[in-house]
Amino acid sequence: MNVVQVIGIEGLPIIKTGDNLAKLVCDAAERQGAPIQNGDILVVTHVIVSRAEGRIVNLDEVLPSEFAKSIAKRYEKDPALVEVVLRESKSIRRMGDGKLIMESKHGFVCANAGVDKSNVPGERIVTLLPDDPDASAEKIRQEIKRLTGFDVAVIISDTHGRPLREGEINVAIGVAGIMPIRDRRGEKDLFGYVLRVKQTAVADELSSAAELVIGQADEGVPVAIIRGYNYPKSESAKATELVRQKEKDLFL
Amino acid sequence: MNVVQVIGIEGLPIIKTGDNLAKLVCDAAERQGAPIQNGDILVVTHVIVSRAEGRIVNLDEVLPSEFAKSIAKRYEKDPALVEVVLRESKSIRRMGDGKLIMESKHGFVCANAGVDKSNVPGERIVTLLPDDPDASAEKIRQEIKRLTGFDVAVIISDTHGRPLREGEINVAIGVAGIMPIRDRRGEKDLFGYVLRVKQTAVADELSSAAELVIGQADEGVPVAIIRGYNYPKSESAKATELVRQKEKDLFL
Repeated sequence: MNVVQVIGIEGLPIIKTGDNLAKLVCDAAERQGAPIQNGDILVVTHVIVSRAEGRIVNLDEVLPSEFAKSIAKRYEKDPALVEVVLRESKSIRRMGDGKLIMESKHGFVCANAGVDKSNVPGERIVTLLPDDPDASAEKIRQEIKRLTGFDVAVIISDTHGRPLREGEINVAIGVAGIMPIRDRRGEKDLFGYVLRVKQTAVADELSSAAELVIGQADEGVPVAIIRGYNYPKSESAKATELVRQKEKDLFL
Repeated sequence: MNVVQVIGIEGLPIIKTGDNLAKLVCDAAERQGAPIQNGDILVVTHVIVSRAEGRIVNLDEVLPSEFAKSIAKRYEKDPALVEVVLRESKSIRRMGDGKLIMESKHGFVCANAGVDKSNVPGERIVTLLPDDPDASAEKIRQEIKRLTGFDVAVIISDTHGRPLREGEINVAIGVAGIMPIRDRRGEKDLFGYVLRVKQTAVADELSSAAELVIGQADEGVPVAIIRGYNYPKSESAKATELVRQKEKDLFL
């Protein structure tokens, strides 16, 4: 039977700068009787990666520029937050309705360039996205290999709003060991008809599947193990393969 | 332990017009030792729903309009296919690169208004989206209730390309028994910080999770059971709640 399991990892401590995330996750998985296995996919919400990497900023220590102040005034935002968002951005896509839709320095288009106020102790502390989420994922993957001997895939995820559709979904912003897109062009369907367009964003689908356990818990479940999914392996893939170039985007 | 299972339903026959999908799915789930349970979520790929409902068209029997012919010529498409796509559409969003990005008559923005050539016997046969996918989902749900006594949620899914990001993901185009969006505004996070923006498109995330078993099989797996996810119940929700109105879409 074809079954994929999505297992929430509970009981992780509050992550601090410098923590060995891979070890904490392995230990927590072991404690709850679901030790990591070869071929597992770990989906890790970026906020704990950011915290482990010290990608946090105290807004009280930020001196906003005049530009940040003018945007903050116009859109009723915190000037220090706007300043941090601008520093994390490559371009401004759209502002309005109290939201700043930015292109992050990595290329992801999302609200506030991924700068996040929730799940951080103290209202004036924000987390930034990891500096290089693929490298963050690879570091966790290598450490798990060292600790367990197992080859796993690691996905760093974030919750994004999106065009056309209401509601947010979890998507991949960093990958290691897995191709983010499964290219099925050339495969045959049930009737031997060759699939024409079929490039499945599996890293995004895995991130969304992980949210089913990450999002439903009362207590923090920042990591999910996905087991039983035969993912397309890669030693060099990057999550930015999921970013469509603006000039190629027929939807915009 | 917090575990969600995604179970692929195998061994369904090729679906024909008039088939009782709910019964076929119940039987197949039973045969493979995973009978449907109370609280399960069934994700059904739209193509088998469309076939059961007779939403198929033979392109050889379609007389394209002059407008369809001119579009077909310009974008190197089959005139009969363009005609069918136009009939299924409320508006044309964008054309180019061999693709027609349409607003379906339901309001979904997707390639070819959901008219699909794959997974149908014979190259000249296309499937249309169900006429009213929420009603299709509710019909399956009520029939399952009648057959098993269990209350389940049903999601009709389709694979959509999307703006900003490469690759396609599975999303919900019809729902029954479940709210498509979980509104978490007002809930508290791990540190007692009230989540500001948190409306999770759970029906889309469930559809993407289902694709992990639907998309990986060599043989047809057109239905997945998702078990262990405590979904937000509704007797009146519609998948079109997932469609963002153009004038409210900051991303576009």
